[in-house]
Amino acid sequence: MKPNILVIAGHDPSGGAGIHADIEAIQALGGFASTLITGLTVQNSQNVRGFQLTDVALLEQQADALLDDFQYQAVKIGMTGSVAIIEFIARLLDRLPGVPVVLDPVLAAEAGGSLTSESLADVMLNQLAPRCEVMTPNLPEAEKLSGRHGVQACGEALVKASGQGVLITGTHDNTDLVANHLFTASGEQQWQWERLPHSYHGSGCTLASSIACLRGHGESLGNAVADGQAHVDRFLRKAFRPGAGQYVPDRR
Amino acid sequence: MKPNILVIAGHDPSGGAGIHADIEAIQALGGFASTLITGLTVQNSQNVRGFQLTDVALLEQQADALLDDFQYQAVKIGMTGSVAIIEFIARLLDRLPGVPVVLDPVLAAEAGGSLTSESLADVMLNQLAPRCEVMTPNLPEAEKLSGRHGVQACGEALVKASGQGVLITGTHDNTDLVANHLFTASGEQQWQWERLPHSYHGSGCTLASSIACLRGHGESLGNAVADGQAHVDRFLRKAFRPGAGQYVPDRR
Repeated sequence: MKPNILVIAGHDPSGGAGIHADIEAIQALGGFASTLITGLTVQNSQNVRGFQLTDVALLEQQADALLDDFQYQAVKIGMTGSVAIIEFIARLLDRLPGVPVVLDPVLAAEAGGSLTSESLADVMLNQLAPRCEVMTPNLPEAEKLSGRHGVQACGEALVKASGQGVLITGTHDNTDLVANHLFTASGEQQWQWERLPHSYHGSGCTLASSIACLRGHGESLGNAVADGQAHVDRFLRKAFRPGAGQYVPDRR
Repeated sequence: MKPNILVIAGHDPSGGAGIHADIEAIQALGGFASTLITGLTVQNSQNVRGFQLTDVALLEQQADALLDDFQYQAVKIGMTGSVAIIEFIARLLDRLPGVPVVLDPVLAAEAGGSLTSESLADVMLNQLAPRCEVMTPNLPEAEKLSGRHGVQACGEALVKASGQGVLITGTHDNTDLVANHLFTASGEQQWQWERLPHSYHGSGCTLASSIACLRGHGESLGNAVADGQAHVDRFLRKAFRPGAGQYVPDRR
């Protein structure tokens, strides 16, 4: 069986990030993605120029149509964009009890430019994170969400605040190795990966969707987080440069 | 080099058709899709419940961002939705001289429900078709577009009206074999395929995107049309059923 993965995220017309990344990663890992688009962005591989959020009333209709027809094995959440959309997502998750949810708490687009105002961080932490099995911030996002500094302090604070797992990625550092830390109520795990030479568009979306898809296949959280990172490393090593900006992971 | 394929089409949250189909087919065939979403639809694998078109001003900004960064090797057009959007697309194609364009003239969604009013057929034929190397209607669409009846009459009328190629697909017939006919100024070609047992969501999108991607790789129109059909046949033979409605081609 191909797991159905519900993606709630933004749309990037240039195809590097957002639902393109989610659809491609989930397809590559043997799942099937449904997508609710929280907002249409204006961007390319170089920068983000703007965005327009989707009406919550339309999202509600789309969610009803999907839940009337499909059963979901996992959910991935990316760009949320507004308090009203976060509240919509929280209501939707309450209709999917027991389904594992991966939250990529997007606070800024990788090509630069803010996609989410800072005041949303609190609402995300209070309304969404407790409903999600794991969130996958990079360290700057984890610091904004928790108000703490450093991996250890952020990880502990976010587990305490959400009662759920937190994978803090080290991609935005400049060390030789990228260290990713998973904090859960039962302890901590760490992985190290070679830092690859380029800047990549959509690697965070790709990681969160890969973890969601593997959870949808029935892998444990620890295995899904480990295997998801390995898939992303594989996609990044084949990355290509479609324009004049960032590289894009080859999600095949 | 991975060809950049510009897709201008609707979004189907259930993932069977629209840009999901395009992204997956183009990924499977070694291209990279950019997408301009003409409208967000409300649908699942059983029926279409509604849609909301995108503001042309936003589409213009997105197109500018993409063309500032990427060069395109082919274009695929699916659901257009309004005269204003068709006119936007026509202006956009004028900025991409020499780039092959495949037009899937979507007049209704496969799961039932009209996505495009009939009056758009004329504008599509007059404004878009002459700018597209080939269009890929099924026979009912070809009959609506041309006002004629039967494959031969429709094909000849549409080549004459557009000055371009027309691939008329026989999927909506109920013969043992599916016969697809390509009409161009230089003659006619025909292919026959085994009719597969189910009803499929997104097979038309998948075919048009496959042809566009193969043109983007540099195949001739005749080869792209032949190979595109073979890829779709392969995807359909692996199709799966994600909900209670139509099957979805496995585009890998």
